[in-house]
Amino acid sequence: MIPTIELAAVAASALYGILRGLRDGFDIVGLLCVGAATAFGGGTLRDLFLDRTPLFWVEHEYLLWVVFGLAAVSAVTPRMVARIEPYLIWPDALGLGLFSVAGAAVAVNEGMSPLIAAVMGVITGTFGSVICDVICNETPNIFRTSPLCATCALLGAIVYLTGESLAIPATISQPLAITAAATLRLLAV
Amino acid sequence: MIPTIELAAVAASALYGILRGLRDGFDIVGLLCVGAATAFGGGTLRDLFLDRTPLFWVEHEYLLWVVFGLAAVSAVTPRMVARIEPYLIWPDALGLGLFSVAGAAVAVNEGMSPLIAAVMGVITGTFGSVICDVICNETPNIFRTSPLCATCALLGAIVYLTGESLAIPATISQPLAITAAATLRLLAV
Amino acid sequence: MIPTIELAAVAASALYGILRGLRDGFDIVGLLCVGAATAFGGGTLRDLFLDRTPLFWVEHEYLLWVVFGLAAVSAVTPRMVARIEPYLIWPDALGLGLFSVAGAAVAVNEGMSPLIAAVMGVITGTFGSVICDVICNETPNIFRTSPLCATCALLGAIVYLTGESLAIPATISQPLAITAAATLRLLAV
Repeated sequence: MIPTIELAAVAASALYGILRGLRDGFDIVGLLCVGAATAFGGGTLRDLFLDRTPLFWVEHEYLLWVVFGLAAVSAVTPRMVARIEPYLIWPDALGLGLFSVAGAAVAVNEGMSPLIAAVMGVITGTFGSVICDVICNETPNIFRTSPLCATCALLGAIVYLTGESLAIPATISQPLAITAAATLRLLAV
Repeated sequence: MIPTIELAAVAASALYGILRGLRDGFDIVGLLCVGAATAFGGGTLRDLFLDRTPLFWVEHEYLLWVVFGLAAVSAVTPRMVARIEPYLIWPDALGLGLFSVAGAAVAVNEGMSPLIAAVMGVITGTFGSVICDVICNETPNIFRTSPLCATCALLGAIVYLTGESLAIPATISQPLAITAAATLRLLAV
Repeated sequence: MIPTIELAAVAASALYGILRGLRDGFDIVGLLCVGAATAFGGGTLRDLFLDRTPLFWVEHEYLLWVVFGLAAVSAVTPRMVARIEPYLIWPDALGLGLFSVAGAAVAVNEGMSPLIAAVMGVITGTFGSVICDVICNETPNIFRTSPLCATCALLGAIVYLTGESLAIPATISQPLAITAAATLRLLAV
Protein backbone atom coordinates (compact mmCIF):
# COMPACT_ATOMS: atom_id res chain seq x y z
CA MET A 1 0.00 0.00 0.00
CA ILE A 2 2.93 2.38 0.69
CA PRO A 3 3.86 2.79 -3.04
CA THR A 4 0.28 3.89 -3.83
CA ILE A 5 0.27 6.44 -1.01
CA GLU A 6 3.68 7.72 -2.07
CA LEU A 7 2.51 8.10 -5.69
CA ALA A 8 -0.47 10.22 -4.59
CA ALA A 9 1.72 12.17 -2.15
CA VAL A 10 4.31 12.92 -4.83
CA ALA A 11 1.65 14.11 -7.28
CA ALA A 12 -0.01 16.39 -4.71
CA SER A 13 3.27 17.82 -3.39
CA ALA A 14 4.76 18.34 -6.84
CA LEU A 15 1.63 20.20 -7.90
CA TYR A 16 1.89 22.40 -4.81
CA GLY A 17 5.57 23.19 -5.50
CA ILE A 18 4.93 23.86 -9.19
CA LEU A 19 2.03 26.24 -8.45
CA ARG A 20 4.22 28.13 -6.01
CA GLY A 21 6.95 28.29 -8.67
CA LEU A 22 4.50 29.54 -11.31
CA ARG A 23 3.44 32.36 -8.99
CA ASP A 24 7.14 33.35 -8.75
CA GLY A 25 7.56 33.25 -12.54
CA PHE A 26 9.87 30.22 -12.78
CA ASP A 27 10.54 28.73 -16.21
CA ILE A 28 9.95 25.04 -17.00
CA VAL A 29 13.25 23.76 -15.57
CA GLY A 30 12.73 25.87 -12.47
CA LEU A 31 9.24 24.40 -12.13
CA LEU A 32 10.65 20.92 -12.51
CA CYS A 33 13.27 21.58 -9.82
CA VAL A 34 10.89 23.14 -7.30
CA GLY A 35 8.30 20.43 -8.01
CA ALA A 36 10.85 17.65 -7.52
CA ALA A 37 12.34 19.25 -4.39
CA THR A 38 8.89 19.64 -2.82
CA ALA A 39 7.75 16.15 -3.81
CA PHE A 40 10.93 14.23 -2.95
CA GLY A 41 12.46 16.33 -0.15
CA GLY A 42 10.70 14.79 2.84
CA GLY A 43 10.92 11.18 1.71
CA THR A 44 14.56 11.58 0.73
CA LEU A 45 15.45 12.86 4.19
CA ARG A 46 13.54 9.96 5.75
CA ASP A 47 15.36 7.43 3.55
CA LEU A 48 18.75 9.00 4.37
CA PHE A 49 17.97 9.07 8.10
CA LEU A 50 16.87 5.42 8.06
CA ASP A 51 19.77 4.44 5.77
CA ARG A 52 17.37 2.96 3.20
CA THR A 53 18.83 2.35 -0.24
CA PRO A 54 17.98 2.99 -2.95
CA LEU A 55 16.01 6.16 -2.25
CA PHE A 56 12.29 5.78 -2.96
CA TRP A 57 12.40 7.87 -6.15
CA VAL A 58 15.50 6.03 -7.39
CA GLU A 59 13.68 2.73 -6.83
CA HIS A 60 10.41 3.95 -8.38
CA GLU A 61 11.58 5.99 -11.36
CA TYR A 62 8.02 6.55 -12.56
CA LEU A 63 7.69 9.10 -9.74
CA LEU A 64 10.17 11.29 -11.61
CA TRP A 65 8.02 11.07 -14.74
CA VAL A 66 4.96 12.14 -12.75
CA VAL A 67 6.78 15.30 -11.66
CA PHE A 68 8.14 15.91 -15.17
CA GLY A 69 4.66 15.57 -16.62
CA LEU A 70 3.08 17.96 -14.12
CA ALA A 71 5.83 20.54 -14.67
CA ALA A 72 5.49 20.30 -18.46
CA VAL A 73 1.70 20.63 -18.44
CA SER A 74 1.90 23.55 -16.01
CA ALA A 75 4.54 25.35 -18.08
CA VAL A 76 2.43 25.26 -21.24
CA THR A 77 -0.89 26.07 -19.56
CA PRO A 78 0.12 28.68 -16.97
CA ARG A 79 -3.15 30.59 -17.23
CA MET A 80 -5.28 27.55 -16.54
CA VAL A 81 -2.98 26.55 -13.70
CA ALA A 82 -3.13 30.06 -12.23
CA ARG A 83 -6.88 29.65 -11.86
CA ILE A 84 -6.17 26.65 -9.63
CA GLU A 85 -4.25 28.87 -7.22
CA PRO A 86 -7.08 29.53 -4.74
CA TYR A 87 -7.19 25.77 -4.30
CA LEU A 88 -3.45 25.54 -3.57
CA ILE A 89 -4.30 24.48 -0.04
CA TRP A 90 -5.78 21.19 -1.29
CA PRO A 91 -2.67 19.58 -2.76
CA ASP A 92 -0.72 20.97 0.18
CA ALA A 93 -3.04 19.38 2.76
CA LEU A 94 -3.29 16.13 0.84
CA GLY A 95 0.48 15.88 0.31
CA LEU A 96 1.02 16.56 4.01
CA GLY A 97 -1.42 13.87 5.09
CA LEU A 98 -0.20 11.26 2.61
CA PHE A 99 3.49 11.82 3.30
CA SER A 100 3.16 11.87 7.09
CA VAL A 101 1.53 8.42 6.96
CA ALA A 102 3.97 7.11 4.33
CA GLY A 103 6.88 8.31 6.47
CA ALA A 104 5.61 6.68 9.64
CA ALA A 105 4.67 3.46 7.83
CA VAL A 106 8.11 3.06 6.26
CA ALA A 107 9.77 3.62 9.64
CA VAL A 108 7.53 0.97 11.25
CA ASN A 109 8.48 -1.45 8.44
CA GLU A 110 12.15 -0.77 9.23
CA GLY A 111 11.54 -1.82 12.83
CA MET A 112 11.68 1.63 14.38
CA SER A 113 9.97 2.49 17.68
CA PRO A 114 6.66 4.46 17.59
CA LEU A 115 8.49 7.61 18.74
CA ILE A 116 11.02 7.47 15.89
CA ALA A 117 8.21 6.53 13.47
CA ALA A 118 6.25 9.63 14.53
CA VAL A 119 9.33 11.83 14.05
CA MET A 120 9.89 10.31 10.59
CA GLY A 121 6.21 10.98 9.79
CA VAL A 122 6.60 14.64 10.71
CA ILE A 123 9.87 14.98 8.75
CA THR A 124 8.47 13.25 5.65
CA GLY A 125 5.22 15.22 5.83
CA THR A 126 6.70 18.66 6.29
CA PHE A 127 10.24 18.85 4.89
CA GLY A 128 9.12 19.15 1.26
CA SER A 129 7.20 22.34 1.91
CA VAL A 130 10.03 23.67 4.11
CA ILE A 131 12.39 23.30 1.10
CA CYS A 132 9.76 24.92 -1.11
CA ASP A 133 9.63 27.89 1.28
CA VAL A 134 13.42 28.17 1.42
CA ILE A 135 13.56 28.16 -2.40
CA CYS A 136 10.98 30.94 -2.49
CA ASN A 137 12.98 32.68 0.28
CA GLU A 138 10.14 32.88 2.80
CA THR A 139 10.30 31.96 6.47
CA PRO A 140 9.31 28.29 6.41
CA ASN A 141 5.58 28.08 7.04
CA ILE A 142 5.89 25.21 9.47
CA PHE A 143 7.47 27.42 12.10
CA ARG A 144 4.77 30.06 12.15
CA THR A 145 2.12 29.96 14.87
CA SER A 146 -0.47 28.96 12.29
CA PRO A 147 -1.31 26.95 10.18
CA LEU A 148 0.49 24.27 12.13
CA CYS A 149 1.88 22.04 9.39
CA ALA A 150 3.96 20.02 11.81
CA THR A 151 1.02 19.50 14.17
CA CYS A 152 -1.06 18.12 11.28
CA ALA A 153 1.70 15.74 10.24
CA LEU A 154 2.11 14.63 13.85
CA LEU A 155 -1.62 13.98 14.12
CA GLY A 156 -1.52 11.83 10.95
CA ALA A 157 1.42 9.84 12.26
CA ILE A 158 -0.19 9.35 15.69
CA VAL A 159 -3.54 8.19 14.28
CA TYR A 160 -1.77 5.66 12.07
CA LEU A 161 0.59 4.46 14.83
CA THR A 162 -2.31 4.11 17.28
CA GLY A 163 -4.04 1.96 14.67
CA GLU A 164 -0.89 -0.15 14.34
CA SER A 165 -0.61 -0.69 18.09
CA LEU A 166 -4.29 -1.74 18.22
CA ALA A 167 -3.62 -4.12 15.29
CA ILE A 168 -6.15 -2.31 13.09
CA PRO A 169 -5.48 -3.19 9.41
CA ALA A 170 -3.45 -0.60 7.50
CA THR A 171 -6.19 -0.41 4.86
CA ILE A 172 -8.35 1.22 7.53
CA SER A 173 -5.86 3.09 9.71
CA GLN A 174 -3.91 4.69 6.87
CA PRO A 175 -6.83 6.36 5.03
CA LEU A 176 -8.16 7.48 8.41
CA ALA A 177 -4.82 9.01 9.38
CA ILE A 178 -4.41 10.72 5.99
CA THR A 179 -7.91 12.20 6.27
CA ALA A 180 -7.28 13.38 9.84
CA ALA A 181 -4.04 15.18 8.95
CA ALA A 182 -5.39 16.74 5.75
CA THR A 183 -8.63 17.86 7.42
CA LEU A 184 -6.81 19.52 10.33
CA ARG A 185 -4.58 21.27 7.80
CA LEU A 186 -7.58 22.56 5.85
CA LEU A 187 -9.31 23.74 9.03
CA ALA A 188 -6.15 25.45 10.29
CA VAL A 189 -5.79 27.83 7.33
CA MET B 1 32.20 9.72 27.47
CA ILE B 2 30.78 10.76 24.07
CA PRO B 3 27.11 10.06 25.06
CA THR B 4 27.46 12.35 28.10
CA ILE B 5 28.93 15.15 26.00
CA GLU B 6 26.21 14.70 23.38
CA LEU B 7 23.49 14.83 26.03
CA ALA B 8 24.83 18.15 27.35
CA ALA B 9 25.33 19.45 23.81
CA VAL B 10 21.77 18.55 22.81
CA ALA B 11 20.32 20.24 25.90
CA ALA B 12 22.33 23.44 25.37
CA SER B 13 21.63 23.63 21.62
CA ALA B 14 17.94 22.81 21.97
CA LEU B 15 17.60 25.56 24.57
CA TYR B 16 19.31 28.00 22.22
CA GLY B 17 17.01 27.09 19.33
CA ILE B 18 13.90 27.23 21.51
CA LEU B 19 14.80 30.67 22.89
CA ARG B 20 15.33 31.94 19.35
CA GLY B 21 11.97 30.48 18.39
CA LEU B 22 10.23 32.07 21.39
CA ARG B 23 11.59 35.45 20.34
CA ASP B 24 10.00 34.89 16.92
CA GLY B 25 6.65 33.91 18.47
CA PHE B 26 6.65 30.22 17.51
CA ASP B 27 4.00 27.96 19.05
CA ILE B 28 4.88 24.76 20.95
CA VAL B 29 5.25 22.55 17.86
CA GLY B 30 7.32 25.21 16.15
CA LEU B 31 9.52 25.41 19.27
CA LEU B 32 9.89 21.66 19.25
CA CYS B 33 10.90 21.68 15.57
CA VAL B 34 13.40 24.51 15.85
CA GLY B 35 14.81 23.02 19.07
CA ALA B 36 15.21 19.59 17.48
CA ALA B 37 16.69 21.01 14.26
CA THR B 38 19.24 23.05 16.21
CA ALA B 39 20.11 20.22 18.59
CA PHE B 40 20.28 17.38 16.06
CA GLY B 41 21.30 19.16 12.83
CA GLY B 42 25.07 19.07 13.23
CA GLY B 43 25.33 15.55 14.59
CA THR B 44 22.93 14.22 11.96
CA LEU B 45 25.03 15.65 9.16
CA ARG B 46 28.16 14.14 10.74
CA ASP B 47 26.49 10.72 11.03
CA LEU B 48 25.28 10.89 7.41
CA PHE B 49 28.72 11.98 6.17
CA LEU B 50 30.45 9.16 8.09
CA ASP B 51 27.72 6.67 7.11
CA ARG B 52 27.02 5.85 10.76
CA THR B 53 23.75 4.06 11.43
CA PRO B 54 21.56 4.46 13.31
CA LEU B 55 21.78 8.24 13.73
CA PHE B 56 22.78 9.29 17.24
CA TRP B 57 19.29 10.50 18.18
CA VAL B 58 17.66 7.36 16.74
CA GLU B 59 20.05 5.26 18.86
CA HIS B 60 19.59 7.39 21.99
CA GLU B 61 15.88 8.17 21.97
CA TYR B 62 16.06 9.89 25.34
CA LEU B 63 17.66 12.83 23.52
CA LEU B 64 14.30 13.42 21.81
CA TRP B 65 12.59 13.52 25.21
CA VAL B 66 15.09 16.09 26.44
CA VAL B 67 14.16 18.38 23.53
CA PHE B 68 10.42 17.69 24.00
CA GLY B 69 10.71 18.53 27.69
CA LEU B 70 12.58 21.78 27.10
CA ALA B 71 10.10 22.86 24.40
CA ALA B 72 7.10 22.06 26.62
CA VAL B 73 8.51 23.91 29.64
CA SER B 74 9.43 26.90 27.48
CA ALA B 75 6.00 27.02 25.86
CA VAL B 76 4.19 27.20 29.21
CA THR B 77 6.63 29.60 30.89
CA PRO B 78 7.46 31.99 28.03
CA ARG B 79 7.85 35.00 30.31
CA MET B 80 10.37 33.30 32.56
CA VAL B 81 12.22 32.01 29.53
CA ALA B 82 12.27 35.47 27.96
CA ARG B 83 14.20 36.73 30.95
CA ILE B 84 16.89 34.20 30.09
CA GLU B 85 17.36 35.84 26.69
CA PRO B 86 20.33 38.05 27.60
CA TYR B 87 22.11 34.83 28.51
CA LEU B 88 21.33 33.24 25.12
CA ILE B 89 25.05 33.30 24.35
CA TRP B 90 25.76 30.75 27.10
CA PRO B 91 23.89 27.74 25.74
CA ASP B 92 25.09 28.74 22.26
CA ALA B 93 28.77 28.77 23.31
CA LEU B 94 28.40 25.60 25.35
CA GLY B 95 26.58 23.74 22.59
CA LEU B 96 29.23 24.81 20.12
CA GLY B 97 32.09 23.62 22.31
CA LEU B 98 30.44 20.34 23.25
CA PHE B 99 29.37 19.46 19.71
CA SER B 100 32.70 20.34 18.10
CA VAL B 101 34.47 17.92 20.43
CA ALA B 102 31.76 15.25 20.09
CA GLY B 103 31.99 15.54 16.30
CA ALA B 104 35.76 15.20 16.21
CA ALA B 105 35.76 12.37 18.77
CA VAL B 106 33.22 10.30 16.83
CA ALA B 107 35.23 10.76 13.62
CA VAL B 108 38.42 9.63 15.39
CA ASN B 109 36.55 6.55 16.68
CA GLU B 110 35.50 5.79 13.09
CA GLY B 111 39.18 5.78 12.06
CA MET B 112 39.18 9.12 10.23
CA SER B 113 42.36 11.20 9.77
CA PRO B 114 42.86 14.28 11.99
CA LEU B 115 41.98 16.56 9.04
CA ILE B 116 38.64 14.86 8.43
CA ALA B 117 38.03 14.72 12.20
CA ALA B 118 38.58 18.49 12.44
CA VAL B 119 36.16 19.10 9.54
CA MET B 120 33.56 16.87 11.23
CA GLY B 121 34.10 18.81 14.47
CA VAL B 122 33.40 22.09 12.69
CA ILE B 123 30.33 20.68 10.89
CA THR B 124 28.89 19.14 14.05
CA GLY B 125 29.62 22.24 16.11
CA THR B 126 28.17 24.80 13.73
CA PHE B 127 25.52 23.26 11.48
CA GLY B 128 22.78 23.30 14.12
CA SER B 129 22.93 27.06 14.50
CA VAL B 130 23.20 27.49 10.73
CA ILE B 131 19.87 25.64 10.39
CA CYS B 132 18.45 27.74 13.23
CA ASP B 133 19.46 30.89 11.33
CA VAL B 134 17.98 29.62 8.07
CA ILE B 135 14.70 28.82 9.87
CA CYS B 136 14.64 32.34 11.27
CA ASN B 137 15.58 33.59 7.79
CA GLU B 138 18.75 35.41 8.82
CA THR B 139 22.13 35.22 7.11
CA PRO B 140 23.79 32.35 8.96
CA ASN B 141 25.86 33.79 11.77
CA ILE B 142 28.81 31.55 11.06
CA PHE B 143 29.62 33.36 7.84
CA ARG B 144 29.78 36.84 9.31
CA THR B 145 33.16 38.34 10.16
CA SER B 146 32.39 38.06 13.85
CA PRO B 147 31.63 36.20 16.12
CA LEU B 148 33.54 33.46 14.38
CA CYS B 149 31.49 30.39 15.22
CA ALA B 150 33.42 28.19 12.84
CA THR B 151 36.76 29.39 14.23
CA CYS B 152 35.65 28.46 17.75
CA ALA B 153 34.53 25.00 16.65
CA LEU B 154 37.82 24.54 14.80
CA LEU B 155 39.75 25.53 17.95
CA GLY B 156 37.83 22.98 20.01
CA ALA B 157 38.50 20.23 17.48
CA ILE B 158 42.21 21.12 17.23
CA VAL B 159 42.74 21.19 21.00
CA TYR B 160 41.09 17.78 21.35
CA LEU B 161 42.93 16.27 18.35
CA THR B 162 46.27 17.62 19.61
CA GLY B 163 45.54 15.93 22.93
CA GLU B 164 44.76 12.69 21.07
CA SER B 165 48.03 12.80 19.12
CA LEU B 166 49.95 13.40 22.37
CA ALA B 167 48.10 10.44 23.95
CA ILE B 168 46.56 12.69 26.61
CA PRO B 169 43.50 10.92 28.13
CA ALA B 170 40.15 12.03 26.71
CA THR B 171 38.92 12.81 30.23
CA ILE B 172 41.43 15.67 30.24
CA SER B 173 41.64 16.74 26.58
CA GLN B 174 37.88 16.81 25.98
CA PRO B 175 36.87 19.15 28.84
CA LEU B 176 39.85 21.34 27.94
CA ALA B 177 38.79 21.52 24.30
CA ILE B 178 35.15 22.23 25.17
CA THR B 179 36.24 25.04 27.51
CA ALA B 180 38.57 26.52 24.90
CA ALA B 181 35.91 26.61 22.18
CA ALA B 182 33.16 27.96 24.47
CA THR B 183 35.46 30.60 25.99
CA LEU B 184 36.59 31.89 22.60
CA ARG B 185 32.95 32.06 21.55
CA LEU B 186 32.01 34.06 24.66
CA LEU B 187 34.95 36.43 24.18
CA ALA B 188 34.17 36.90 20.49
CA VAL B 189 30.67 38.31 21.02
CA MET C 1 39.26 10.37 -15.37
CA ILE C 2 36.57 11.24 -12.78
CA PRO C 3 39.09 12.29 -10.06
CA THR C 4 40.70 14.75 -12.50
CA ILE C 5 37.34 16.27 -13.42
CA GLU C 6 36.36 16.49 -9.76
CA LEU C 7 39.63 18.22 -8.88
CA ALA C 8 39.03 20.89 -11.54
CA ALA C 9 35.36 21.17 -10.54
CA VAL C 10 36.25 21.64 -6.87
CA ALA C 11 38.83 24.32 -7.67
CA ALA C 12 36.44 26.25 -9.93
CA SER C 13 33.48 26.01 -7.55
CA ALA C 14 35.52 26.85 -4.46
CA LEU C 15 36.86 29.94 -6.23
CA TYR C 16 33.32 30.97 -7.11
CA GLY C 17 32.12 30.55 -3.53
CA ILE C 18 35.14 32.37 -2.10
CA LEU C 19 34.73 35.33 -4.46
CA ARG C 20 31.07 35.59 -3.48
CA GLY C 21 32.11 35.46 0.18
CA LEU C 22 34.77 38.16 -0.33
CA ARG C 23 32.12 40.43 -1.84
CA ASP C 24 30.06 39.94 1.34
CA GLY C 25 33.06 40.73 3.57
CA PHE C 26 33.57 37.26 5.07
CA ASP C 27 36.74 36.60 7.07
CA ILE C 28 39.12 33.73 6.27
CA VAL C 29 37.16 31.04 8.11
CA GLY C 30 33.94 32.26 6.51
CA LEU C 31 35.64 32.11 3.10
CA LEU C 32 36.82 28.59 3.84
CA CYS C 33 33.30 27.52 4.84
CA VAL C 34 31.52 29.08 1.87
CA GLY C 35 34.23 27.78 -0.49
CA ALA C 36 33.96 24.26 0.90
CA ALA C 37 30.14 24.31 0.91
CA THR C 38 30.04 25.45 -2.72
CA ALA C 39 32.74 23.02 -3.86
CA PHE C 40 31.55 19.94 -1.95
CA GLY C 41 27.79 20.50 -1.67
CA GLY C 42 26.66 18.96 -4.94
CA GLY C 43 28.98 15.96 -4.88
CA THR C 44 28.18 15.26 -1.23
CA LEU C 45 24.46 15.16 -1.95
CA ARG C 46 25.11 12.83 -4.91
CA ASP C 47 27.25 10.51 -2.75
CA LEU C 48 24.59 10.47 0.01
CA PHE C 49 21.80 9.81 -2.50
CA LEU C 50 23.76 6.95 -4.11
CA ASP C 51 24.91 5.65 -0.70
CA ARG C 52 28.56 5.90 -1.72
CA THR C 53 31.06 5.77 1.12
CA PRO C 54 33.38 7.37 1.88
CA LEU C 55 32.28 10.73 0.46
CA PHE C 56 34.48 11.91 -2.42
CA TRP C 57 36.20 14.60 -0.33
CA VAL C 58 36.76 12.18 2.57
CA GLU C 59 38.37 9.74 0.13
CA HIS C 60 40.44 12.41 -1.64
CA GLU C 61 41.60 14.63 1.22
CA TYR C 62 43.77 16.73 -1.08
CA LEU C 63 40.54 18.35 -2.28
CA LEU C 64 40.20 19.93 1.16
CA TRP C 65 43.71 21.35 0.85
CA VAL C 66 42.84 22.86 -2.52
CA VAL C 67 39.93 24.74 -0.93
CA PHE C 68 42.05 25.74 2.10
CA GLY C 69 44.76 27.06 -0.21
CA LEU C 70 42.35 29.08 -2.33
CA ALA C 71 40.67 30.56 0.77
CA ALA C 72 44.02 31.49 2.33
CA VAL C 73 45.35 33.13 -0.84
CA SER C 74 42.07 35.02 -1.32
CA ALA C 75 42.02 36.23 2.27
CA VAL C 76 45.51 37.77 2.04
CA THR C 77 45.10 39.22 -1.45
CA PRO C 78 41.50 40.50 -1.38
CA ARG C 79 42.19 43.43 -3.65
CA MET C 80 43.71 41.32 -6.39
CA VAL C 81 40.88 38.84 -6.03
CA ALA C 82 38.29 41.63 -6.23
CA ARG C 83 39.61 42.51 -9.66
CA ILE C 84 38.72 38.98 -10.75
CA GLU C 85 35.07 39.60 -9.88
CA PRO C 86 33.86 40.53 -13.38
CA TYR C 87 35.09 37.11 -14.44
CA LEU C 88 33.11 35.37 -11.65
CA ILE C 89 30.96 33.76 -14.32
CA TRP C 90 33.93 31.71 -15.60
CA PRO C 91 34.59 29.53 -12.55
CA ASP C 92 30.82 29.28 -12.08
CA ALA C 93 30.25 28.00 -15.64
CA LEU C 94 33.26 25.71 -15.51
CA GLY C 95 32.31 24.27 -12.12
CA LEU C 96 28.78 23.69 -13.35
CA GLY C 97 29.94 21.87 -16.47
CA LEU C 98 32.57 19.78 -14.70
CA PHE C 99 30.31 18.76 -11.82
CA SER C 100 27.30 17.90 -13.98
CA VAL C 101 29.46 15.45 -15.95
CA ALA C 102 31.20 14.10 -12.83
CA GLY C 103 27.81 13.55 -11.20
CA ALA C 104 26.36 11.70 -14.16
CA ALA C 105 29.55 9.66 -14.67
CA VAL C 106 29.64 8.48 -11.06
CA ALA C 107 25.97 7.46 -11.23
CA VAL C 108 26.62 5.48 -14.43
CA ASN C 109 29.55 3.73 -12.70
CA GLU C 110 27.19 2.80 -9.84
CA GLY C 111 24.87 1.11 -12.36
CA MET C 112 22.14 3.73 -12.36
CA SER C 113 19.74 4.22 -15.29
CA PRO C 114 20.31 7.20 -17.66
CA LEU C 115 17.35 9.03 -16.09
CA ILE C 116 18.77 8.77 -12.57
CA ALA C 117 22.24 9.61 -13.90
CA ALA C 118 20.87 12.79 -15.50
CA VAL C 119 19.17 13.77 -12.24
CA MET C 120 22.42 13.14 -10.34
CA GLY C 121 24.24 15.29 -12.92
CA VAL C 122 21.83 18.16 -12.34
CA ILE C 123 22.03 17.81 -8.54
CA THR C 124 25.83 17.62 -8.51
CA GLY C 125 26.16 20.49 -10.97
CA THR C 126 23.79 22.90 -9.29
CA PHE C 127 23.50 22.19 -5.58
CA GLY C 128 26.80 23.84 -4.66
CA SER C 129 25.71 27.20 -5.99
CA VAL C 130 22.25 26.78 -4.44
CA ILE C 131 23.96 26.42 -1.03
CA CYS C 132 26.16 29.40 -1.84
CA ASP C 133 23.02 31.45 -2.58
CA VAL C 134 21.31 30.31 0.61
CA ILE C 135 24.41 31.28 2.63
CA CYS C 136 24.36 34.72 1.02
CA ASN C 137 20.60 34.80 1.66
CA GLU C 138 19.54 35.33 -1.96
CA THR C 139 16.82 33.44 -3.82
CA PRO C 140 18.75 30.54 -5.32
CA ASN C 141 19.81 31.49 -8.84
CA ILE C 142 18.84 28.18 -10.31
CA PHE C 143 15.15 28.87 -9.88
CA ARG C 144 15.09 32.19 -11.68
CA THR C 145 13.92 32.33 -15.28
CA SER C 146 17.47 33.08 -16.39
CA PRO C 147 20.38 32.15 -16.33
CA LEU C 148 19.14 28.60 -16.34
CA CYS C 149 21.77 26.85 -14.25
CA ALA C 150 19.77 23.64 -14.09
CA THR C 151 19.19 23.61 -17.84
CA CYS C 152 22.95 23.89 -18.43
CA ALA C 153 23.71 21.04 -16.02
CA LEU C 154 21.01 18.95 -17.68
CA LEU C 155 22.54 19.62 -21.11
CA GLY C 156 25.97 18.53 -19.86
CA ALA C 157 24.55 15.34 -18.40
CA ILE C 158 22.55 14.56 -21.56
CA VAL C 159 25.50 15.10 -23.92
CA TYR C 160 27.67 12.79 -21.81
CA LEU C 161 24.96 10.15 -21.40
CA THR C 162 24.20 10.21 -25.15
CA GLY C 163 27.90 9.62 -25.72
CA GLU C 164 27.81 6.71 -23.30
CA SER C 165 24.82 5.09 -25.02
CA LEU C 166 26.60 5.45 -28.39
CA ALA C 167 29.73 3.87 -26.85
CA ILE C 168 31.77 7.00 -27.52
CA PRO C 169 34.91 6.95 -25.30
CA ALA C 170 34.63 9.05 -22.12
CA THR C 171 37.82 10.91 -23.10
CA ILE C 172 35.81 12.44 -25.95
CA SER C 173 32.25 12.63 -24.57
CA GLN C 174 33.19 14.11 -21.20
CA PRO C 175 35.18 17.14 -22.44
CA LEU C 176 32.45 17.71 -25.05
CA ALA C 177 29.72 17.62 -22.40
CA ILE C 178 31.65 19.91 -20.04
CA THR C 179 32.19 22.41 -22.86
CA ALA C 180 28.53 22.28 -23.88
CA ALA C 181 27.25 22.95 -20.35
CA ALA C 182 29.79 25.70 -19.60
CA THR C 183 29.21 27.41 -22.95
CA LEU C 184 25.44 27.47 -22.54
CA ARG C 185 25.93 28.91 -19.06
CA LEU C 186 28.21 31.66 -20.38
CA LEU C 187 25.77 32.48 -23.20
CA ALA C 188 22.80 32.54 -20.83
CA VAL C 189 24.14 35.32 -18.59
